[in-house]
Amino acid sequence: MNPELWIRLGEAILQVIFIVILATVVIKVGTKIIDQFYGRRKKGPFRISARRETTLTKLSKNTLIYVVYFTALVMILETFSINVGALIAGAGVAGLAIGFGAQNLVRDIISGFFIIFEDQFSVGDFIGTAGVEGFVIEIGLRTSKVKSWGGEIHIIPNGNITQVTNYSIDNAAAIVDVKVAYESDFERAEQVINELLKEMPSRYSSMISTPEILGVVDLAPSEITLRIFAETLPMEHWPVGRAIRKEVKLRLDEEGIEIPFPRIVMYSREGTGGVQGGERV
Amino acid sequence: MNPELWIRLGEAILQVIFIVILATVVIKVGTKIIDQFYGRRKKGPFRISARRETTLTKLSKNTLIYVVYFTALVMILETFSINVGALIAGAGVAGLAIGFGAQNLVRDIISGFFIIFEDQFSVGDFIGTAGVEGFVIEIGLRTSKVKSWGGEIHIIPNGNITQVTNYSIDNAAAIVDVKVAYESDFERAEQVINELLKEMPSRYSSMISTPEILGVVDLAPSEITLRIFAETLPMEHWPVGRAIRKEVKLRLDEEGIEIPFPRIVMYSREGTGGVQGGERV
Amino acid sequence: MNPELWIRLGEAILQVIFIVILATVVIKVGTKIIDQFYGRRKKGPFRISARRETTLTKLSKNTLIYVVYFTALVMILETFSINVGALIAGAGVAGLAIGFGAQNLVRDIISGFFIIFEDQFSVGDFIGTAGVEGFVIEIGLRTSKVKSWGGEIHIIPNGNITQVTNYSIDNAAAIVDVKVAYESDFERAEQVINELLKEMPSRYSSMISTPEILGVVDLAPSEITLRIFAETLPMEHWPVGRAIRKEVKLRLDEEGIEIPFPRIVMYSREGTGGVQGGERV
Amino acid sequence: MNPELWIRLGEAILQVIFIVILATVVIKVGTKIIDQFYGRRKKGPFRISARRETTLTKLSKNTLIYVVYFTALVMILETFSINVGALIAGAGVAGLAIGFGAQNLVRDIISGFFIIFEDQFSVGDFIGTAGVEGFVIEIGLRTSKVKSWGGEIHIIPNGNITQVTNYSIDNAAAIVDVKVAYESDFERAEQVINELLKEMPSRYSSMISTPEILGVVDLAPSEITLRIFAETLPMEHWPVGRAIRKEVKLRLDEEGIEIPFPRIVMYSREGTGGVQGGERV
Amino acid sequence: MNPELWIRLGEAILQVIFIVILATVVIKVGTKIIDQFYGRRKKGPFRISARRETTLTKLSKNTLIYVVYFTALVMILETFSINVGALIAGAGVAGLAIGFGAQNLVRDIISGFFIIFEDQFSVGDFIGTAGVEGFVIEIGLRTSKVKSWGGEIHIIPNGNITQVTNYSIDNAAAIVDVKVAYESDFERAEQVINELLKEMPSRYSSMISTPEILGVVDLAPSEITLRIFAETLPMEHWPVGRAIRKEVKLRLDEEGIEIPFPRIVMYSREGTGGVQGGERV
Amino acid sequence: MNPELWIRLGEAILQVIFIVILATVVIKVGTKIIDQFYGRRKKGPFRISARRETTLTKLSKNTLIYVVYFTALVMILETFSINVGALIAGAGVAGLAIGFGAQNLVRDIISGFFIIFEDQFSVGDFIGTAGVEGFVIEIGLRTSKVKSWGGEIHIIPNGNITQVTNYSIDNAAAIVDVKVAYESDFERAEQVINELLKEMPSRYSSMISTPEILGVVDLAPSEITLRIFAETLPMEHWPVGRAIRKEVKLRLDEEGIEIPFPRIVMYSREGTGGVQGGERV
Amino acid sequence: MNPELWIRLGEAILQVIFIVILATVVIKVGTKIIDQFYGRRKKGPFRISARRETTLTKLSKNTLIYVVYFTALVMILETFSINVGALIAGAGVAGLAIGFGAQNLVRDIISGFFIIFEDQFSVGDFIGTAGVEGFVIEIGLRTSKVKSWGGEIHIIPNGNITQVTNYSIDNAAAIVDVKVAYESDFERAEQVINELLKEMPSRYSSMISTPEILGVVDLAPSEITLRIFAETLPMEHWPVGRAIRKEVKLRLDEEGIEIPFPRIVMYSREGTGGVQGGERV
Repeated sequence: MNPELWIRLGEAILQVIFIVILATVVIKVGTKIIDQFYGRRKKGPFRISARRETTLTKLSKNTLIYVVYFTALVMILETFSINVGALIAGAGVAGLAIGFGAQNLVRDIISGFFIIFEDQFSVGDFIGTAGVEGFVIEIGLRTSKVKSWGGEIHIIPNGNITQVTNYSIDNAAAIVDVKVAYESDFERAEQVINELLKEMPSRYSSMISTPEILGVVDLAPSEITLRIFAETLPMEHWPVGRAIRKEVKLRLDEEGIEIPFPRIVMYSREGTGGVQGGERV
Repeated sequence: MNPELWIRLGEAILQVIFIVILATVVIKVGTKIIDQFYGRRKKGPFRISARRETTLTKLSKNTLIYVVYFTALVMILETFSINVGALIAGAGVAGLAIGFGAQNLVRDIISGFFIIFEDQFSVGDFIGTAGVEGFVIEIGLRTSKVKSWGGEIHIIPNGNITQVTNYSIDNAAAIVDVKVAYESDFERAEQVINELLKEMPSRYSSMISTPEILGVVDLAPSEITLRIFAETLPMEHWPVGRAIRKEVKLRLDEEGIEIPFPRIVMYSREGTGGVQGGERV
Repeated sequence: MNPELWIRLGEAILQVIFIVILATVVIKVGTKIIDQFYGRRKKGPFRISARRETTLTKLSKNTLIYVVYFTALVMILETFSINVGALIAGAGVAGLAIGFGAQNLVRDIISGFFIIFEDQFSVGDFIGTAGVEGFVIEIGLRTSKVKSWGGEIHIIPNGNITQVTNYSIDNAAAIVDVKVAYESDFERAEQVINELLKEMPSRYSSMISTPEILGVVDLAPSEITLRIFAETLPMEHWPVGRAIRKEVKLRLDEEGIEIPFPRIVMYSREGTGGVQGGERV
Repeated sequence: MNPELWIRLGEAILQVIFIVILATVVIKVGTKIIDQFYGRRKKGPFRISARRETTLTKLSKNTLIYVVYFTALVMILETFSINVGALIAGAGVAGLAIGFGAQNLVRDIISGFFIIFEDQFSVGDFIGTAGVEGFVIEIGLRTSKVKSWGGEIHIIPNGNITQVTNYSIDNAAAIVDVKVAYESDFERAEQVINELLKEMPSRYSSMISTPEILGVVDLAPSEITLRIFAETLPMEHWPVGRAIRKEVKLRLDEEGIEIPFPRIVMYSREGTGGVQGGERV
Repeated sequence: MNPELWIRLGEAILQVIFIVILATVVIKVGTKIIDQFYGRRKKGPFRISARRETTLTKLSKNTLIYVVYFTALVMILETFSINVGALIAGAGVAGLAIGFGAQNLVRDIISGFFIIFEDQFSVGDFIGTAGVEGFVIEIGLRTSKVKSWGGEIHIIPNGNITQVTNYSIDNAAAIVDVKVAYESDFERAEQVINELLKEMPSRYSSMISTPEILGVVDLAPSEITLRIFAETLPMEHWPVGRAIRKEVKLRLDEEGIEIPFPRIVMYSREGTGGVQGGERV
Repeated sequence: MNPELWIRLGEAILQVIFIVILATVVIKVGTKIIDQFYGRRKKGPFRISARRETTLTKLSKNTLIYVVYFTALVMILETFSINVGALIAGAGVAGLAIGFGAQNLVRDIISGFFIIFEDQFSVGDFIGTAGVEGFVIEIGLRTSKVKSWGGEIHIIPNGNITQVTNYSIDNAAAIVDVKVAYESDFERAEQVINELLKEMPSRYSSMISTPEILGVVDLAPSEITLRIFAETLPMEHWPVGRAIRKEVKLRLDEEGIEIPFPRIVMYSREGTGGVQGGERV
Repeated sequence: MNPELWIRLGEAILQVIFIVILATVVIKVGTKIIDQFYGRRKKGPFRISARRETTLTKLSKNTLIYVVYFTALVMILETFSINVGALIAGAGVAGLAIGFGAQNLVRDIISGFFIIFEDQFSVGDFIGTAGVEGFVIEIGLRTSKVKSWGGEIHIIPNGNITQVTNYSIDNAAAIVDVKVAYESDFERAEQVINELLKEMPSRYSSMISTPEILGVVDLAPSEITLRIFAETLPMEHWPVGRAIRKEVKLRLDEEGIEIPFPRIVMYSREGTGGVQGGERV
């Protein structure tokens, strides 16, 4: 622990402090530039859709932070004479372990790249993937964030996002099953519902066309199941479905058509259900 | 940071701008050529079926975009003296991680190639694969898109499409189970349904032959289950099935044949079901 | 872009056109030869069973197409000076990724080879594999096609076909469970069914021997379950099973033997089921 | 395409024909020798159990066919100057893909070897493995065949046969659960069943010892469950179980002991179950 | 076992004791420094949010312990002339086994790094991951600890934390389903509940806005299901949900609106449910 | 096929016969020695527990057979000039495939070694592992055999035995749930059962201590569930549990305490459950 | 087999005997030293918690046995001139197979190390991991042992212990759901239970604070579900939960508040539930 060592240590610490400050400054400035850049593009010739813009703004900042911090880390390690490149390129057991351990990281970044490049989804879209459903609130280089109805934030590594279901691209369809009693006048029920459905688009602007009864999808034990199909604007199928359910219920009530409770036919026998004296029927 | 560096940076930026413009132009021109090419082929000697045409048009454009952008990316990186080839060929830990991480990408493209080459499905087909069902709206080099009845767009990497169920190639079959009460005259029920089925093909053009009763597929607790089998045009089995269900219900009503509710036979015992004083039967 | 380049490009395009025409001609001629070859073998000394013939005809054509197109592709690529062999043999990261990505392809072809070689199933067999059931309509080098009752075509990579259940090789067995009430005369029921079963083979030619009652397989809450076992020709167990169910039902009706509905024994208590004033029993 | 090429092609075709004929002859002769060999061993000093003999006969033929055809294939390929050895030993991308793709094949053969060597099961045994149950009808080098009760032939690669349940080696046990009503005289029921069980071995030769009542295995909501345990000859536990069920049912009927239906205790309340006017209890 | 060996052994033991003492001291001192450092930062210019502070304090200590102990272990091993570096770099079979076995360790550390770096969650957050839910109580280099409501401590390797659901970042939503009887005046029920919901935010400060009835989400067999949606502060959705349930119940009682019990419609038949003498209807 | 070849073939066959005879003799002699060795150890100074002895006897024979047969196989192959060592050491594609295919074999043997070395279970223990439960009847080098109650022999590769549940090492506990009616005098029921439990250890020698009532583990819809806990000798928990169930049932009957049937509270409404004319409530 | 060979064999056997005796002695002595060492540490300056002591004692002995036996095995093998080091370092096919096969072993030991190092659990803790729950009775180098309530010993390789749930570290919580009838005075029920809960901590010393009613967690079909939350000492949540259930039941009985049975509302219709003559409503 001679003085030279102390001097070298001091120098290193100074360098580290300088690197950290530099990194902070670069990120602050970079973030501003990104905001301005996407702000201006709205009027320039290279306009991009508003849908992609939020995505790209967030992604650019995210990428900037990763790159700056990664560079800073490598610079700091080199300050202490740790050669990252050699470390990573080194083969042997450690290399094998690192290579296997790091493959998830590489897969996440490749997947992230394709999510952006293929425009699979943008910030604000409602998607389902990797077992969760919700609105995309951030697409990053390594992870994406999705917010459910219930407010939970799901943080998903991009490599887990193999298959995506996007609800925000195309028109949706509200599918409502209505149960009609076997005992009621089935054709009148169909006619009453059809009349109702014809009136609905005028009251619900998110309906794209007149909903229709597809037909009898099930002859269930206690009821006939009719299926109603209504095309709606994207993401409007939930409120439209709830509205159809309510209006159908009220209209059927008005017309005195029965929505059936479960039925049962009961035979009562007089024996005790036991076998005393061969009494069993 | 000497002036030479600034000049080189300026040059690089100019080159990048040039590459981006070039890529945009190539894609626009290429897209036009592809449209024209497939448009003309309709009358030329190398006609292809309409079914494959939409698929190939979309695929060609998709491939064009990938190739152009990839080339542009490599050119830009080389502008900044990053040798992509060496990067990819480099072995060591990083190489191992990249190799493992990228295998999904390679598998996607190989699978995509075989989907096209073997004509597993075309744009517009109704297929089931990887846990989703819907109409194919795009077959790309890396991913395919499928749209469900409900309007959701499923984006599926081709590597996930291992096993495909195609509903659009061959005739479909509507299979309807009708329940008949044990108490009714079973043979008359069979006869009534058979008469109805014979009349149906004249009313439903998508029925390919007279539907038939296969027989008794279940002696369930409360009912006898008859199965009706009706061959239909591809994808018409759903509406035909719904029509059969409705008509069978109405006809059985007319003829007074019972569609059974769940039955139960009840024995009432007089004790309280408790054991006070050995009262239990 | 000197004239020499244009000339070389022209030459290349001519070569490509020539290769494509050649490939088309080879496939057409090859297909004819295959048809003739298998047609003639019917009378020659090297006869093969009809069952394998359809399989081999389809497979030969399928293989021809793959080989011709693959050769054509390699020739076209070499026209543009892309050496496929070197590409495939190349090690490094890309090689690793391709090697892993392509292993599915190799596994598919190996599996396909063994399906044919071991005669696991032929075109026309009814098989169950990889979660689907249906008739085999094509066995290819890489994928096989199976058609379900419902008309869906399942396209299955051969590598997914690990375990096969073949219904078309051996006689099948219809297994029918008949429920008899605890209250009925159980031995008479058994005797009545046995008499019926003895009459059946004369009426159903696909029954191979007299069906028999195996015995009481369950003493269920509401009924005694008898199991009937009937050996049939391959694939005839479904219609035979349906016939047995129908005839047993009709015969038991005739003989006044009860097919039981679910039973329940009910004790009614006079309290309200609440605890007001210690009223609970 | 000079005449020399034609001559070489002709020679090659002649060689192929010769190889095919040779292979066919070798297989026919080999099969005969195998049949004779195992036929004679029955009296020779190296006797093997009948159980293993069928297995080994089938396996020997199966191995013979694989070896001959494989040799023939290699010879034919070498006729056309394709060096199989070099192909297989070749490293690089193709080698990697083939190596991974072929590992299933190697695993199948290793597993197959151990099935025979450890005598896990023989042709004719009833086994359960890889999700199927049935009689073994063939053990091959790569796959084994199992036939279910229903007549389906399951073709299972030996590599899938990791865990085997063999029903044919040791005595089996019929386990029958009998339900007795809470209301009946439980000890008398036990005594009646015990008397019956003592009589049974004289009537059923496949019972190895007197069956016994293990005791009360469940106090279920509506019934007491007694378990009967009967040791039987291998594979006889199914018929013995059915016989016990039938005899116990008849005996309990004779003795007037109740096999209980599901019970329920019902409290009727006078309110409507709604809350109008605080009417709820 | 000459004296020299004994001396070397003695020296080694002394060195080990010295290393252990040194490690203990370094950890004690380091822990103090870490505590002071984060304590001071509260007023310095580089302030960090309180949320991250607890996380970083715990993590820093955790990392310190790992690094010190690992260094000590290597030093001790080298005392006994075991070269750890060579051991790890050594290829061959042992290296392969170690490399594969250690990949989990590497993956854990990489994942742990990204959890901190991307601020996926902090100590004190309520998260769901890897099948458990609870409050984060420690984020370490290799494992994180989560405490459930029930007091169980879950110790999860960071590599298992692929997908995280964080409940503490954003506002939550209480979703309550209320069942209304088909027989009641549905619109009045809706109105009564709406009035109640309007009053609630004044009484519950954790409600962020007035809760609302989304609509009819199900027409169930016995009841109409209304869904109530209430935005709340993070983690307050559980108590808010319980409060809404209670208040809705009490209000509906007051207003005499029925919360429905399961319904059933019963047809009583006079026959015995048997078939004696064709008596069946 | 010159005479020299015939002579060498003859020599080879003679050698093979000699090897086979030698192997048979070695196995017979070795088996005897093993039997004697373990027989004598019973009195020698190196006594081993009886529990391990059966295991080691079976294992030693099993290992002997493997080693002898493997050596014989290698010797026979070398007779025909096939160098097994070179074959196995050979790299390339075949080596890769064999290496992957054989890893299961290696894993089985390593696992088998640890089962013996760590004394996880011995022949005769009742264990649960790999989804099966039963008595261990053989522990081999590669596979172990387990026999279920029903007599099935499960043959399990040791590599599948990752996690073992051993029932034969320590005392077991019989856990019996008793249901008591809400309507009965709950504290008296508890007292009656407690009295019974105190009497039981004197009658059942396999009970290790007085069983106790743990308490109320569930307030189920129709009953209160009490849990009884009884420590027993290993494997005696099944018969003890059955005995407790029977005695509790009889004692509760004696004392007139009710074991409850499922209860239901029924409200009868007078309407028809339909909505004709607003008739609903 | 010359005399020299016999002499060398004799020497080898003598050496083996010597090694075995030495190993036995080393283990006996080592075990004693370990016992003494941990015994003394209780008063020394390097005290460790009692919780870790049992763990470390067992682990030290376990490690000693492994190390001694492994060394002995290597020494014995070298006696017979088998070089273990060369065997393990050998590459080629065998090496590949061994490397893959042995990775589980390495993973087990690495995991075991971290279980101890991170103090995830100690001997005596109640933990849940790898699908089993119970008290830890041994933590070894390769496997750990867990004993369930029922007395089963689970032997779990450390590599299977990825995620651990430790119940013994922190206070537990008893969570009890109480059902209250819709018809009862809900607020009085709440008040009665609250009074009871306030009295309980004085009677149950393992309760850490006054339990509280969280609120209404479900409006179920037949009942309102209240949840009670009680913090307890570690592992005391089960007995506390049972006590709460019992006391709540008794108190509600006293106060005449109903614990509801399942309810049903029944509409009786007069028709037969069939359709004869349009008789259906």
